[in-house]
Amino acid sequence: MGWSTAERIVVRGKDLPGEILGHLNLGDMAFFELTGRVPDAKESKLFNAMVVTLVEHGVTPSALAARLTYLGAPEAMQAAVAAGLCGLGSVFVGSTEGVAKMLSESSAEEILQKYKRVPGLGHPLHKPVDPRTRRLFEIARETGFYGKYCRAMEEIAKSKGLTLNATGAIGALACELGLDWRAVRGLGVMARAVGLVGHLLEESRQPMAEEVWLRIEEEASRHLKP
Amino acid sequence: MGWSTAERIVVRGKDLPGEILGHLNLGDMAFFELTGRVPDAKESKLFNAMVVTLVEHGVTPSALAARLTYLGAPEAMQAAVAAGLCGLGSVFVGSTEGVAKMLSESSAEEILQKYKRVPGLGHPLHKPVDPRTRRLFEIARETGFYGKYCRAMEEIAKSKGLTLNATGAIGALACELGLDWRAVRGLGVMARAVGLVGHLLEESRQPMAEEVWLRIEEEASRHLKP
Amino acid sequence: MGWSTAERIVVRGKDLPGEILGHLNLGDMAFFELTGRVPDAKESKLFNAMVVTLVEHGVTPSALAARLTYLGAPEAMQAAVAAGLCGLGSVFVGSTEGVAKMLSESSAEEILQKYKRVPGLGHPLHKPVDPRTRRLFEIARETGFYGKYCRAMEEIAKSKGLTLNATGAIGALACELGLDWRAVRGLGVMARAVGLVGHLLEESRQPMAEEVWLRIEEEASRHLKP
Amino acid sequence: MGWSTAERIVVRGKDLPGEILGHLNLGDMAFFELTGRVPDAKESKLFNAMVVTLVEHGVTPSALAARLTYLGAPEAMQAAVAAGLCGLGSVFVGSTEGVAKMLSESSAEEILQKYKRVPGLGHPLHKPVDPRTRRLFEIARETGFYGKYCRAMEEIAKSKGLTLNATGAIGALACELGLDWRAVRGLGVMARAVGLVGHLLEESRQPMAEEVWLRIEEEASRHLKP
Repeated sequence: MGWSTAERIVVRGKDLPGEILGHLNLGDMAFFELTGRVPDAKESKLFNAMVVTLVEHGVTPSALAARLTYLGAPEAMQAAVAAGLCGLGSVFVGSTEGVAKMLSESSAEEILQKYKRVPGLGHPLHKPVDPRTRRLFEIARETGFYGKYCRAMEEIAKSKGLTLNATGAIGALACELGLDWRAVRGLGVMARAVGLVGHLLEESRQPMAEEVWLRIEEEASRHLKP
Repeated sequence: MGWSTAERIVVRGKDLPGEILGHLNLGDMAFFELTGRVPDAKESKLFNAMVVTLVEHGVTPSALAARLTYLGAPEAMQAAVAAGLCGLGSVFVGSTEGVAKMLSESSAEEILQKYKRVPGLGHPLHKPVDPRTRRLFEIARETGFYGKYCRAMEEIAKSKGLTLNATGAIGALACELGLDWRAVRGLGVMARAVGLVGHLLEESRQPMAEEVWLRIEEEASRHLKP
Repeated sequence: MGWSTAERIVVRGKDLPGEILGHLNLGDMAFFELTGRVPDAKESKLFNAMVVTLVEHGVTPSALAARLTYLGAPEAMQAAVAAGLCGLGSVFVGSTEGVAKMLSESSAEEILQKYKRVPGLGHPLHKPVDPRTRRLFEIARETGFYGKYCRAMEEIAKSKGLTLNATGAIGALACELGLDWRAVRGLGVMARAVGLVGHLLEESRQPMAEEVWLRIEEEASRHLKP
Repeated sequence: MGWSTAERIVVRGKDLPGEILGHLNLGDMAFFELTGRVPDAKESKLFNAMVVTLVEHGVTPSALAARLTYLGAPEAMQAAVAAGLCGLGSVFVGSTEGVAKMLSESSAEEILQKYKRVPGLGHPLHKPVDPRTRRLFEIARETGFYGKYCRAMEEIAKSKGLTLNATGAIGALACELGLDWRAVRGLGVMARAVGLVGHLLEESRQPMAEEVWLRIEEEASRHLKP
């Protein structure tokens, strides 16, 4: 994806110091990595908003796993971030991929017929409207990317009587931007890597992992002791 | 670090849909996670440039580890990114942390006396000048962040007759921005997470891991076979 | 799964120092963890053989990923093992789970009807017979565990004209031993953890990762350079 | 470390089906991987006891991290084990390595002079005697491996008035067996991989991770909500 000589560093055909540093923000660089082209201002606004949505979700299982890992190996923060990422699978975060794949293969009508459980719908707390979806679709309209995939998801959500949640919105918007569905889980993975670094810095200052561990261990073994 | 109700999602005191989405790019969001405040335009430009520098370094050991992992578990891309991050330790990437810690504790003079091997100096290819350092310090001057930590590293590099490499520059700039040194390794970790997603998308389209594996395996066992 | 007081350490109802240490070998302990009971001598022989089969497969993608990770973070060997394990998914090792699940749900006849591609069959090198399968089934006969699941797999392999490979044999034997199919991928995971520690010790003495990396990087970027 | 042809599979010079399967248990295989030779009966008994000691420590931070990871990605159990291993660093488990390195470099006298905090000493619960140490040293005496490294650790513990804990005993015994200190952290890593598979099977049957997550999240955000 890149090459270097003594004087030059080139990433995907662009000069890193001259054409990228100071010109692309981190979200733009991610877009560039995934598509091979620099986003225009509208793409940049929408794509950054999508990824930023996924950075911080508070004390998730992923954040707890990272903090508990850091407790045992504070000298290897990268491994604590890695531990936190390992759980971004089919249950959490990975559903954006499911939405993007589904929309890239089927119409709303076909989806309603084929899928018993449509990914990207429903939320335990945010109902009837997920405020992130409302805001992301607002940005999509502003930037001209509110299109057929967004409409399809809204139609499906209405028909099912369920909230169109943020992962559903982001899956649809990834399709609007022409991203490959195989990269879509990666949006959540990179976003959470950012958020997990934040959690680990907080853990180094205001630790919570040790207290959590000792309490849960005590609870789990109490009934076993003589 | 955040909380939600049916109608609201708040991250570190800011309304996620209303104050963050569409306003902060991914690098700004990282800055916000690490400092608790939104960067101004100058901080945003410099911080994004620092992190973007670390996204893509071609076929690194980290990228190879991620691609080889993806070969065995393509259904768990998050685990392949995690595998790639696990190696961002003392030898690669982690040296930014060493630089930031060193500069937050000692002056250039003390460093020259105390350290036999100063982190952030030397590069096998980029000499006498690392073009990323030149560009990052140019942006630092433009944004008013070229200060005593940058000067200290330049002085030390000159005195040692070694290139001030990009990790040295980024460690110094992290100090100029007032970042906690304990978060500095995290800059490389989040940046590489972005780059690794790019590598895995490429691997899914133009695989290289299988060929690498079969070739290395054949070479490693050839002399053992009867 | 356990509890301690000042004087006692109890794991699943057994006194660790008095009833486990010196009495159970590592494979027996694994069996005890997965079933809640200590294996008898026959179970011990078969179960240990199954897991030992999966320890060392030479320079696999998993071993390469671990070695490349160790190159960057030699101070965090546990993270290098973790990186190596992350790829034990659907393509490699994970197929034992597929076999055990399939056999616990369907008869040979049903499998031949339902599955286009049966897991546990075929091998690029070991044909017509996988010598590990032959030996594992020999041990199964000796210990009285060659039963209907082994027969089913042999029947299917014959009908398909394919080698019954070691993962197929181990999946069948896991069913003969009454192990939960959800634990079966774990047999490969624990076995490879043992093997990866061996690879990392070798890497610390006779490194190969750096040479592999530099060569592959050079090859991958050669055509891009001016 | 191995090679294969259609008919043969050889690991470190031994025929896997003919000389290893059915002859070596999992701990013996680990010993073989780390030393290149098959342990005799006495080495086997001691080495297996050392590794078995480290398999199961109840609800550790590592077990919690693995369970929380499994909650998000049950389809990738290998990644949950990996997440659990990532935290076996300087604080937990890794101390066996510290003990073995220290003993391979210095005498008891030198250690008492040089080290303010000696690894392998002290235990919050097991005092004045760690029952695992007592049992492991008993096995060491039986098998003829109680020697100068064990004596050195006992002398140091006595002089400091602290418990010689299990990691201290295992570090000393690793030296008695002539293991390379660079492999010693690996004993805990492979042992915990076994234990974590046990925890994940239990999690799949009697889940605790979701309840832990929801409770901790509620506690962590309660004071922030309006």
